[in-house]
Amino acid sequence: MANSPHPRSAPSHRRKQTRRSVKTGLPPGSLVHLGEVKTDHPTITLIEYDANAIEERNFQSIEASRAYRPSHATVWLNVYGLQDASIMSEIGSRFDLHPLVLEDILNTSQRPKVDDYGEYLYIVARAVEFDVEAVDVTTEQISIVVGRHFLLTFQERPSGLFDPVRQRLRAETSRMRSLGSDYLAYALLDALVDRYFLVLESITDRAEELEDQVLHNASPALLARINHFKRETVDLRRAVWPMREVINQMIRGDTRFFRTETLPYLRDVYDHTVHVIESLDAMRELIGDMLEVYLSSVSNRLNVEVRLLTVITIIFMPATLISGIFGMNFHSMPLLDKFDGFWTAIGMMVAVAATMGVVFWRRNWLGSRE
Amino acid sequence: MANSPHPRSAPSHRRKQTRRSVKTGLPPGSLVHLGEVKTDHPTITLIEYDANAIEERNFQSIEASRAYRPSHATVWLNVYGLQDASIMSEIGSRFDLHPLVLEDILNTSQRPKVDDYGEYLYIVARAVEFDVEAVDVTTEQISIVVGRHFLLTFQERPSGLFDPVRQRLRAETSRMRSLGSDYLAYALLDALVDRYFLVLESITDRAEELEDQVLHNASPALLARINHFKRETVDLRRAVWPMREVINQMIRGDTRFFRTETLPYLRDVYDHTVHVIESLDAMRELIGDMLEVYLSSVSNRLNVEVRLLTVITIIFMPATLISGIFGMNFHSMPLLDKFDGFWTAIGMMVAVAATMGVVFWRRNWLGSRE
Amino acid sequence: MANSPHPRSAPSHRRKQTRRSVKTGLPPGSLVHLGEVKTDHPTITLIEYDANAIEERNFQSIEASRAYRPSHATVWLNVYGLQDASIMSEIGSRFDLHPLVLEDILNTSQRPKVDDYGEYLYIVARAVEFDVEAVDVTTEQISIVVGRHFLLTFQERPSGLFDPVRQRLRAETSRMRSLGSDYLAYALLDALVDRYFLVLESITDRAEELEDQVLHNASPALLARINHFKRETVDLRRAVWPMREVINQMIRGDTRFFRTETLPYLRDVYDHTVHVIESLDAMRELIGDMLEVYLSSVSNRLNVEVRLLTVITIIFMPATLISGIFGMNFHSMPLLDKFDGFWTAIGMMVAVAATMGVVFWRRNWLGSRE
Amino acid sequence: MANSPHPRSAPSHRRKQTRRSVKTGLPPGSLVHLGEVKTDHPTITLIEYDANAIEERNFQSIEASRAYRPSHATVWLNVYGLQDASIMSEIGSRFDLHPLVLEDILNTSQRPKVDDYGEYLYIVARAVEFDVEAVDVTTEQISIVVGRHFLLTFQERPSGLFDPVRQRLRAETSRMRSLGSDYLAYALLDALVDRYFLVLESITDRAEELEDQVLHNASPALLARINHFKRETVDLRRAVWPMREVINQMIRGDTRFFRTETLPYLRDVYDHTVHVIESLDAMRELIGDMLEVYLSSVSNRLNVEVRLLTVITIIFMPATLISGIFGMNFHSMPLLDKFDGFWTAIGMMVAVAATMGVVFWRRNWLGSRE
Amino acid sequence: MANSPHPRSAPSHRRKQTRRSVKTGLPPGSLVHLGEVKTDHPTITLIEYDANAIEERNFQSIEASRAYRPSHATVWLNVYGLQDASIMSEIGSRFDLHPLVLEDILNTSQRPKVDDYGEYLYIVARAVEFDVEAVDVTTEQISIVVGRHFLLTFQERPSGLFDPVRQRLRAETSRMRSLGSDYLAYALLDALVDRYFLVLESITDRAEELEDQVLHNASPALLARINHFKRETVDLRRAVWPMREVINQMIRGDTRFFRTETLPYLRDVYDHTVHVIESLDAMRELIGDMLEVYLSSVSNRLNVEVRLLTVITIIFMPATLISGIFGMNFHSMPLLDKFDGFWTAIGMMVAVAATMGVVFWRRNWLGSRE
Repeated sequence: MANSPHPRSAPSHRRKQTRRSVKTGLPPGSLVHLGEVKTDHPTITLIEYDANAIEERNFQSIEASRAYRPSHATVWLNVYGLQDASIMSEIGSRFDLHPLVLEDILNTSQRPKVDDYGEYLYIVARAVEFDVEAVDVTTEQISIVVGRHFLLTFQERPSGLFDPVRQRLRAETSRMRSLGSDYLAYALLDALVDRYFLVLESITDRAEELEDQVLHNASPALLARINHFKRETVDLRRAVWPMREVINQMIRGDTRFFRTETLPYLRDVYDHTVHVIESLDAMRELIGDMLEVYLSSVSNRLNVEVRLLTVITIIFMPATLISGIFGMNFHSMPLLDKFDGFWTAIGMMVAVAATMGVVFWRRNWLGSRE
Repeated sequence: MANSPHPRSAPSHRRKQTRRSVKTGLPPGSLVHLGEVKTDHPTITLIEYDANAIEERNFQSIEASRAYRPSHATVWLNVYGLQDASIMSEIGSRFDLHPLVLEDILNTSQRPKVDDYGEYLYIVARAVEFDVEAVDVTTEQISIVVGRHFLLTFQERPSGLFDPVRQRLRAETSRMRSLGSDYLAYALLDALVDRYFLVLESITDRAEELEDQVLHNASPALLARINHFKRETVDLRRAVWPMREVINQMIRGDTRFFRTETLPYLRDVYDHTVHVIESLDAMRELIGDMLEVYLSSVSNRLNVEVRLLTVITIIFMPATLISGIFGMNFHSMPLLDKFDGFWTAIGMMVAVAATMGVVFWRRNWLGSRE
Repeated sequence: MANSPHPRSAPSHRRKQTRRSVKTGLPPGSLVHLGEVKTDHPTITLIEYDANAIEERNFQSIEASRAYRPSHATVWLNVYGLQDASIMSEIGSRFDLHPLVLEDILNTSQRPKVDDYGEYLYIVARAVEFDVEAVDVTTEQISIVVGRHFLLTFQERPSGLFDPVRQRLRAETSRMRSLGSDYLAYALLDALVDRYFLVLESITDRAEELEDQVLHNASPALLARINHFKRETVDLRRAVWPMREVINQMIRGDTRFFRTETLPYLRDVYDHTVHVIESLDAMRELIGDMLEVYLSSVSNRLNVEVRLLTVITIIFMPATLISGIFGMNFHSMPLLDKFDGFWTAIGMMVAVAATMGVVFWRRNWLGSRE
Repeated sequence: MANSPHPRSAPSHRRKQTRRSVKTGLPPGSLVHLGEVKTDHPTITLIEYDANAIEERNFQSIEASRAYRPSHATVWLNVYGLQDASIMSEIGSRFDLHPLVLEDILNTSQRPKVDDYGEYLYIVARAVEFDVEAVDVTTEQISIVVGRHFLLTFQERPSGLFDPVRQRLRAETSRMRSLGSDYLAYALLDALVDRYFLVLESITDRAEELEDQVLHNASPALLARINHFKRETVDLRRAVWPMREVINQMIRGDTRFFRTETLPYLRDVYDHTVHVIESLDAMRELIGDMLEVYLSSVSNRLNVEVRLLTVITIIFMPATLISGIFGMNFHSMPLLDKFDGFWTAIGMMVAVAATMGVVFWRRNWLGSRE
Repeated sequence: MANSPHPRSAPSHRRKQTRRSVKTGLPPGSLVHLGEVKTDHPTITLIEYDANAIEERNFQSIEASRAYRPSHATVWLNVYGLQDASIMSEIGSRFDLHPLVLEDILNTSQRPKVDDYGEYLYIVARAVEFDVEAVDVTTEQISIVVGRHFLLTFQERPSGLFDPVRQRLRAETSRMRSLGSDYLAYALLDALVDRYFLVLESITDRAEELEDQVLHNASPALLARINHFKRETVDLRRAVWPMREVINQMIRGDTRFFRTETLPYLRDVYDHTVHVIESLDAMRELIGDMLEVYLSSVSNRLNVEVRLLTVITIIFMPATLISGIFGMNFHSMPLLDKFDGFWTAIGMMVAVAATMGVVFWRRNWLGSRE
């Protein structure tokens, strides 16, 4: 779809949003996965570590994990794929999660937020991805539960988003391993916000391409592309914008979950988020101008074309008049009986038309573009 | 009205709003039902329950209910139809409601709000419905009075809005029955906000249809439809927007009416409300762009048509010139005495016109749409 | 002026605002009536009441009132007409009013506000009226001084605004009479805000008329009307908007002047004010769109007319070409020597023109309106 | 420049702003007068008063004043002309002013602000003037230093702004003389804000003129005037807007400088400032609409002219066709051999053209204005 | 590039922003210089001073500085060029800086901010420069670390920004030398904000040029220049805007780093920053209007040209009609057999055309500009 954007695809794309209507009428707290199923079967990975050691384990089913008891200071449980409500329910009871947390994890169209449940913090964030070809922003819900000694993450599918964090944990010399679950939470949020920067860069490139086209080649197809692009950035902004408040709340909150040493790091993530939001706002204004310039460009191009056509009309007019003049029936008229009278008349027509053509060409009125 | 929107209907539709002028001059506190009567006669249903049992009763008149004394922990009294001031007055005195509460219940064009009357909380909310065919948002006032052991709801007509809540209460295993009137209030608000999502989905679909038409088929009739649509979303926003503050006030308020266990649920409803509002705001911007694109499209279509007409003019010009040339009265002119001179001239005319036609066709200037 | 709005009247209308320049240079506190004199001579009415009795008195002059001593719990003194500074001055000294209060009462172009002077509260409000014929919003300053046992109101002219309140006071069974000056203040503000609703309704009707005209009949005269209408709503908004803060301040203020029982009533007035403001804001957006749609409509109508003219041009072109063809001087030309050749040619002209006419008619390009 | 506004003058006018580049690189605290020198030589006037007496003195030089010792309760020292740094420096040391205060007094492009220096309050305000002819707002810095027993004012040139205050002080019966320096500060600010009202009135008149012209006579020269006017109001707003916060800060501040009795007066000035700002904001919206209406009007006028030209074209067309028809070479044609055939044809031409003229005149398409 | 702005250069210019993608995936705290390398090799300058003496030293490498121990009260270490991570790391450990501070110093696309690390304050500011020729705003990160007895500054390249401060420090009589690191921090920020004023002046000049061109010479190339200019001011605003909050935070913060005597100076810088931001906001509105006026101007110019062309068409029409009339084949026609009939006809043509020309010239319809 990259180079031939298909405007009619826009509506169907909108339907990406999960329809809440599926669930209307169910009691709050019912564990139903609301959202597209994006992976074949859920995968559970468990990383546990302390300053000295790190252990990793993959579970293909929740049964397989029942017997296991973690033995290190910090436990990070990650789940890919949310379609299996029984897994959620078991994890919920094992970590003593509130029913609403489980419901929110499964309902993957949540707005980013942070809720303090006393024993743990529940964070909803949205990871974003940008398909450069299709000019398509997709957002995915990342649920993070931060307890004092554990951290749970729930993702709709394996996206490699947290791989850098895992690699740093595995490094022998990692300082992170001695810093507990609050620093891990920071590291994950930092990875998330780094992804925002990547998407922002792709989108900025795309915006510059569009802007270039608006200035030099305003075709009607471009309108649908600008509209589509605008909507994607609105979607992106709606995913990123609440993150600012989420992180701010975490910073302002008391230090039950975040030690004073971790706060500077959180502030750093906060600054990055503000940076992304400001860039998005600047881009939004840019796109707004684009629309205006586009609408005006199309109108101008048409006017330039009409001007060209009018110029052509005018170039014919003196020739027609000359032919009319020599078509008059006066008894006594010059040139008529001359041998080369006809060609003289034709010559006059050509001469006048050519003169006009030169005048208009000098005024630059012969192009159909300006 | 679905496919042939009738612009002139817009004004009369506006008049749905109850005219306050009816009541101007009456003392505050006079019990007069301000608003359309939407049901034949009022119906009173009473549901009382505790963790162990639930009982339901319907009263056709207020007299029938006088003898009845509730015997369970939580009492939910629902009234459909507000035209009978005497019923209101009797309920008011039995539950010791402030005269202003009764007045506000009957005046059904209230803005959503929450008032704390010490012994109970009075909540005004607005249920919304969307008639897809007529592109018509209707809002209806729902009054909820939350006391410590009772909950009163007043609706203009039976709408089935709270049926899911009733069904969950009736279920044998319902956890709700043991959670008191504050959780019931939450459940009702949750049902209300779920309805917002449904309406939002219908409206989003409709907006996408309109946007599609604006891009591909900008007819003047569309302008009235966009305007009408915009006004409906403004009406919807005005019904939903204050709910955010209402629920926020309930969360921030002290815990006289809402136990700590219920607060996370309220926060959840709050998040949903914010989600709806943000979606409405995004749509509002979308519609604003639509109007601009529409206005520009109509103008462009006209310009394209004028261009086509000018092209036709130009195609005739060389032919006319050629006819003029051979109409000149020179004594010595080529072709005139040739047998097929006439057809040669006609052929020249056709050839030049055809050449021009091809040139303009290649430039894509022969369509009356772009 | 109803149906033939006169744009040039707009500037002079603006001058309704009192020119402050009259007073520049006078010391603050000088009692000079700034504003149009709207009534012949000032009238002073005094209503005093308690739970058991009510007495009313009219004074034509301040001298007549000097001997009078009120004997009931609550005294409501109302003054119509502010041109007599001596009356103001005497009332001022009798009720011990601050010089600034007297000055503000007389300077009738004040913005609504509330000032706490310790012994009394000084409220400036603006009553609004809407002249449907002239599409003319007029606002008038209402000064209310609320003391613990008295209430003073100052109006520029008798407007009947507070008549409903007076009638309720006179009613034998009136609960109001036992409620003191704070409830009376509420009742007056409520009457004032009720008037806003009336004006809002008239204006909404007018806006719908205008919108209808913009969609179906965009004439240049309409532009002046839209502009005029917009300015009137801006004036209205400026009169109503500060009332929100005024009433809010009264609610938040400590309970020296308003007893706890009266606060719910004030909150009710507050809600109504917010309702009016939101409606005005929605209307403002509506008018903004109107202007845009109007400007675009006028432009489109012109384009449609130019299209029609171009169509007419084109219809003549083939006929002219045919006449040119048969005007060529070839020796051998078909039809020329046929008896009905001329009429055949005329027939060809008519046929081609008629065909074109039908084509353009089918495309709906023959109207001068779209 | 009144009636022939010169758009090119706008840029140079902008340069009125003092160029800060002059001072870049100097240490903070250097006493250099930044700004145009607006008076020949500085004048120092001293007014000292208490409840019983008032004394005035003019000093032509700072030396002349050295010997003088004030003997009354309140001292008001006013300086016109700031170019002499040595005067400033001496005043500074005599009243113990902070170096930054002296620097700010001399740098006359300060934004209005109030700074609390413990022993005195330093207020920067801007006086405004409006040159109706040139549509030119000029603002001038007024520095006011309020101490407990003295008040200093610094102006760039004698403007008569504070003359009313001086006259009231001189009046025998003046209450002001017993009210101290804080009331004097209020009186000066009140005089300043009164001036804003005067300017606002002139500007409103001018805006109405412009609006009238936009509606009835949109010429290209008007665009430069609207733009120029807009910029002047922006300049005015930037001078007035911070005054709101300045006065608000003075009211909220503790009562070291302003006695409780003076606060109601300050609140009054505050209300006036808010009034001015709201009026400016309303005017700003008005000018924004003006620009839009103007741009649209010019476009419409051109379209109306093109319509007129097209109408003229069409009126010629049937005549040309008739001449073509009678120029055809058919052997048998009606009218050709009639004696008055020629005049019949001319008559036909005139008749058709006249008919068309009437039709278009009725449709009101013959004017070049709408 | 000054007078021939090249629109295509805009996108590439955008890429000035450092791509964060380079660093994604690295652990937070990795010392990698993110940003263009702008100087050949890092330079370290050390200025140490107290009230009595000042010493300056340049180090070409970090090794050279190891042996040195400062001996005066206040130490100011300045680093130009950030590409050598080892230098940073050593400075970091010597002054005990937090890893995040070092990371932020090296990542030169930070948003201005201030972070309190207990022992020192870390300030990120952005210096701005304006290339008048290329209409190009470049911003550069300035990191300032303020400790109680030291101050560190980090710049990407030597820009002379702080030279005025150095010169004042070197002056024998400098008061600054006795005022400690907090006053030095103020002086640096003041120099920074002074630079903003310089850039603001250049930009204002440029804006006035552009505005002049828009009003008098709207060519399509101008659109790209306006767009480019707008983006540059947006970049500038994004660099300056957060400075307001940064300085405000420093003022509000407790007085660990800033003594009470320094606060008035900081407030002064704050006022200047607000002044710059307000000027930028006013300019932003100006540019927004420019775009609108430009778009409208281009459209109008085209319309004026089309009007001119239509006028030319019309001037030919009567001549053509006259030639047609005398080309009719009536047996009896006036003038035909007159000797100078032909020239009479030509004369008629010229006369009519000239008359029309005069009429249109008087109406000012013959120019191709308005």
